[in-house]
Amino acid sequence: MAISSFHPPRRTLMGPGPSDVHPRILEALGRPTLGHLDPLFIGMMDETKTLLKYAFQTSNELTLPISAPGSAGMEACFVNLVEPGDKVLVCVNGVFGNRMIENVTRCGATAVRVDFPWGAAVEPAAVEEALKANSDVKILAFVHAETSTGALSDAQALCALAKKYNALSIVDAVTSMGGVPLLVDKWQADAVYSGSQKCLSCTPGLSPVTFSDAAVAVIKARKHPVQSWFLDMNLILGYWGEGGKRAYHHTAPVNALYGLHESLVMLQDEGLDNAWQRHAAMHGALAAGLEALGISFVVKAEQRLPQLNSVYIPEGVDDAATRQYLLANYDLEIGAGLGDLAGKVWRIGLMGYSARMENISLLLKALAEAMNAQGYTCDAASALAAAEATLA
Amino acid sequence: MAISSFHPPRRTLMGPGPSDVHPRILEALGRPTLGHLDPLFIGMMDETKTLLKYAFQTSNELTLPISAPGSAGMEACFVNLVEPGDKVLVCVNGVFGNRMIENVTRCGATAVRVDFPWGAAVEPAAVEEALKANSDVKILAFVHAETSTGALSDAQALCALAKKYNALSIVDAVTSMGGVPLLVDKWQADAVYSGSQKCLSCTPGLSPVTFSDAAVAVIKARKHPVQSWFLDMNLILGYWGEGGKRAYHHTAPVNALYGLHESLVMLQDEGLDNAWQRHAAMHGALAAGLEALGISFVVKAEQRLPQLNSVYIPEGVDDAATRQYLLANYDLEIGAGLGDLAGKVWRIGLMGYSARMENISLLLKALAEAMNAQGYTCDAASALAAAEATLA
Repeated sequence: MAISSFHPPRRTLMGPGPSDVHPRILEALGRPTLGHLDPLFIGMMDETKTLLKYAFQTSNELTLPISAPGSAGMEACFVNLVEPGDKVLVCVNGVFGNRMIENVTRCGATAVRVDFPWGAAVEPAAVEEALKANSDVKILAFVHAETSTGALSDAQALCALAKKYNALSIVDAVTSMGGVPLLVDKWQADAVYSGSQKCLSCTPGLSPVTFSDAAVAVIKARKHPVQSWFLDMNLILGYWGEGGKRAYHHTAPVNALYGLHESLVMLQDEGLDNAWQRHAAMHGALAAGLEALGISFVVKAEQRLPQLNSVYIPEGVDDAATRQYLLANYDLEIGAGLGDLAGKVWRIGLMGYSARMENISLLLKALAEAMNAQGYTCDAASALAAAEATLA
Repeated sequence: MAISSFHPPRRTLMGPGPSDVHPRILEALGRPTLGHLDPLFIGMMDETKTLLKYAFQTSNELTLPISAPGSAGMEACFVNLVEPGDKVLVCVNGVFGNRMIENVTRCGATAVRVDFPWGAAVEPAAVEEALKANSDVKILAFVHAETSTGALSDAQALCALAKKYNALSIVDAVTSMGGVPLLVDKWQADAVYSGSQKCLSCTPGLSPVTFSDAAVAVIKARKHPVQSWFLDMNLILGYWGEGGKRAYHHTAPVNALYGLHESLVMLQDEGLDNAWQRHAAMHGALAAGLEALGISFVVKAEQRLPQLNSVYIPEGVDDAATRQYLLANYDLEIGAGLGDLAGKVWRIGLMGYSARMENISLLLKALAEAMNAQGYTCDAASALAAAEATLA
């Protein structure tokens, strides 16, 4: 009747996130808890802001982690920038664009949606048409890296369109940060949110956000209070702001922030360029291996996210049975399809610490075995050779 | 220029939370991360719900941890139950009653406030008068254990008043859970939220909540969508609900939940009655010791929270200098006053793992030393003897 301590096995996480958490980060989580107003903790918060500015490539003062998962980071961007009656243009090419629309309407605003096929990038020309047709759009919102499909959109072009048509941009960078170039200042993005559990290889639960000066000005000039007390950036700034009096807002998730700090130190030490190159190289190896197994990609090559690989499940191979086989026999997790792609695709993550050859070798071996057990015919050894050849 | 890993010292946390985190819980945080849809993780979620039902003393099906701190738990209760135009009666006897009013108004509803002196409990007779005068009140909201003052209110009587006047109750139990009796079903409370970092001795960042069937019926019959997507219980239930299809909503904070599970296992093993008795006994010892030092309490004895002791700073003793002395010389944190009580009081926490004689001895010794260094005269040895005598 009594419940015992929980001891999870060590899985290899190659789904859409959480990714494998580096042992250094797991160790950091268990360090002694400090008070959330302790001067040493506040010093760590300042370092975390500095490290996040590097990860976002921004000098935005308002750059910090929201004390909740990426969905709350998304909501923080919308509830702070959107007021009742506003018009927001939302690009939809997967699950997370739809979630943005939910956020817009719950703010009492109007969402104008521009749809694109799932698995394709957002097409800037179509967005420009929509901006021309809706001159009163206050915000253009889009997903940089669609985790539900693996498509990478041209955030630079889309942010430029927002500027051209006098709109602010909201950018979902949950899966892009640390995995592909994300240059907030250069692209002049206005509000960007990410997540801890993707290419940062940290545990899930925190959402880094950054707001441009233009976005801050809009927040400060709001006519209505932000509908969320917990996510009101005016209040959060009182706790996280430089030189402020560190006014108590909510109790920060102290130990989770130790993990984020450690993951950002590791990103700093590796260097963003190196991290991006590593993700690209590992994607190249995985793609060659999967193609040798006869598996094809949902997204065309030039729009693919290296860190999130959506591939079609071969005919005759069972989705759930295969994933269960990998989990039961290899402690290996890959992701199922979401929304329109459920049952049709797998999503194979190569995020952060998961993006290494050891994981790719395991996946190719285990997946080949699981599919061969179902009557499909493929050869793991030649797939592995194809993967390794890309790195030679 | 490069930032290094953060290695915090080991503090003794006797402020208003976070409290000392038990080593077993710190160790649990660093266990291997599982995917948030992994069957083993889902089994752990089910156990966590069972353990939370015990901690809340409820059989409410909708009992789970919100993936964010207590402030988000508060917001979850309000945004799910309150609709625009509703009238909510809010009892205010400290900081957190005021925060409830912020939540009500941001929902587009009307808050009727009933004020009580800071440091006093909510007075049921005054609440009944207000309920009589406002027959259209939909919800009665109050703080069971006011962390800003250390006052304990009679939640049973207040929930009964809500029922008598056909209102739902929202109860802030952030600091009460695990430290004093909290009997959700017996008292017929409708929506109750707590926090992980108080008497559960877990790290901050999670907010257990529970909703009665009556509350769930109100949520399901809403005319407007819940204004927060992240906190919409209809959607959260799709992930946490029994027998459901475990629909993806947001990525759960996996490792933080390991910590909560461990802390709840420890509460189960100790037993709620024993935990309540331990907090009461340690409070008795601390109070005897502090009084021997010539320090007096803000709250009268019969309304005091054992786990949060607000005491007046003696004349001639400096607030900040004393707290800095304790931190610098003893790695010991106590809390400052909040709001109207800032600069006038200290808040000394005896929550969860912090509620042990070792901590009380350290505090009495360190505080006496810090005050004597400022020209105040007191004797640590006799204070410690007075504290120990209460346990004999």
